Amino acid sequence: MPRYALLVEYDGRPFAGWQRQADQPSVQGAIEAALARLEPRDHTIAAAGRTDAGVHGRGQVAHCDMDKDWDPFRLSEALNYHLKPNPVGILACRRVPDDWHARFSAVERRYLFRLLMRRAPATLETGQVWRVMHDLDVDAMREGAQHLIGLHDFTTFRSVMCQAKSPVKTIDEIDIQRIEGFAGPEIQFRLRARSFLHNQVRSIVGTLERVGAGTWQPDRVRAALQACDRAACGPVCPPDGLYLTGVGYPEDVFA
Amino acid sequence: MPRYALLVEYDGRPFAGWQRQADQPSVQGAIEAALARLEPRDHTIAAAGRTDAGVHGRGQVAHCDMDKDWDPFRLSEALNYHLKPNPVGILACRRVPDDWHARFSAVERRYLFRLLMRRAPATLETGQVWRVMHDLDVDAMREGAQHLIGLHDFTTFRSVMCQAKSPVKTIDEIDIQRIEGFAGPEIQFRLRARSFLHNQVRSIVGTLERVGAGTWQPDRVRAALQACDRAACGPVCPPDGLYLTGVGYPEDVFA
Repeated sequence: MPRYALLVEYDGRPFAGWQRQADQPSVQGAIEAALARLEPRDHTIAAAGRTDAGVHGRGQVAHCDMDKDWDPFRLSEALNYHLKPNPVGILACRRVPDDWHARFSAVERRYLFRLLMRRAPATLETGQVWRVMHDLDVDAMREGAQHLIGLHDFTTFRSVMCQAKSPVKTIDEIDIQRIEGFAGPEIQFRLRARSFLHNQVRSIVGTLERVGAGTWQPDRVRAALQACDRAACGPVCPPDGLYLTGVGYPEDVFA
Repeated sequence: MPRYALLVEYDGRPFAGWQRQADQPSVQGAIEAALARLEPRDHTIAAAGRTDAGVHGRGQVAHCDMDKDWDPFRLSEALNYHLKPNPVGILACRRVPDDWHARFSAVERRYLFRLLMRRAPATLETGQVWRVMHDLDVDAMREGAQHLIGLHDFTTFRSVMCQAKSPVKTIDEIDIQRIEGFAGPEIQFRLRARSFLHNQVRSIVGTLERVGAGTWQPDRVRAALQACDRAACGPVCPPDGLYLTGVGYPEDVFA
């Protein structure tokens, strides 16, 4: 069965998350249903990141196995046709070796978190940013974030539901920028790691927001990390501003 | 009755347009309903631009008259509270003189039109961009646009429903930029004039798209303009990518 890698974009708002569920809409379910329109049978696809409800995909990567030998461009066009009206788009499609795996071959995940600072509720960006009403200190957040870079036990910063065998992960980068967005000043957090724990990004951003607001001193992030205690974490932020922006593989599949 | 200027942002998708209508949701109707929660009576507000169904507001300006002497900040906060869950936000509120008028005092309107160029349908930007599947020639579109700058009879570029007394208007600027957007390459059109005719921006953008695609030579825009004939216009583009971004007054109300 020929295997295809899919570069996937989606609006996470109408979905209960990436993962297929019996009674709720999911991104995986939407794509599998579109595949069943092309080859009528059960399909099971795998993805690099199983994003939560409300989390968006900009550069999610999945793979599917087909019976027929599809031209990759035609496959992506046919999938986009059958995905309508779901807010899911196949941005690119490539033939990959049979042993290539969207999840297990991945060596890097990149996330973006958008935080909008203003009094008025978001309108055009509803569900796509986390709106906070106060100003945040970028330098303090950068100082706090530095304590999380590198190899650590991230027990404090993962969900108690997390099923990963080990809480030990390496974060390669937490970049924090203030930009003048279309709707007002935004803080954009960019995180990069081989892999993340469940709720790790939202736990980190929610904690750094407390630092930016001045409620936490930057050093408290180190203390929270060293506590290896979920109760030491700051508030977990909402999924609204979170985007899986890219996945890295030893060779660039979509080049 | 103290008069207040409101800086308004909205997602145009759920609305039949700015203007209040008997049986359909409108931005004006949503704000007037919120005002009625503060001072229970009929309210009638005026706006600088009566945007069509599906057109968005980033810097729309309206004014309202109140019985009580409201603190402007408190008024904007109370309106935002009562506007929920409509995707309408009051970004700023200022006390203005009784003879100041959001529509008649305005001396400039600014619009942005976003066009996304890619094969896959828009997902996170659904309804917020016009997606076209082919690449567009920016230089050709700029050449075509130059014919429209200045004082002209814009009969070709206005809706047959347009109620303006004269089709003669002055366009001060049509700026066309290609940018690398979040969802792919975008063409952003920025138009500036004292006032616009009904459907004028969408008629111009739809025509310039034909120039960018190579179907129209840039000179045909001049011929279309000179024809003073609605039938000479290119296709009117959809409202999805159109934003009223700002309104100019002799004095900056929200400074």
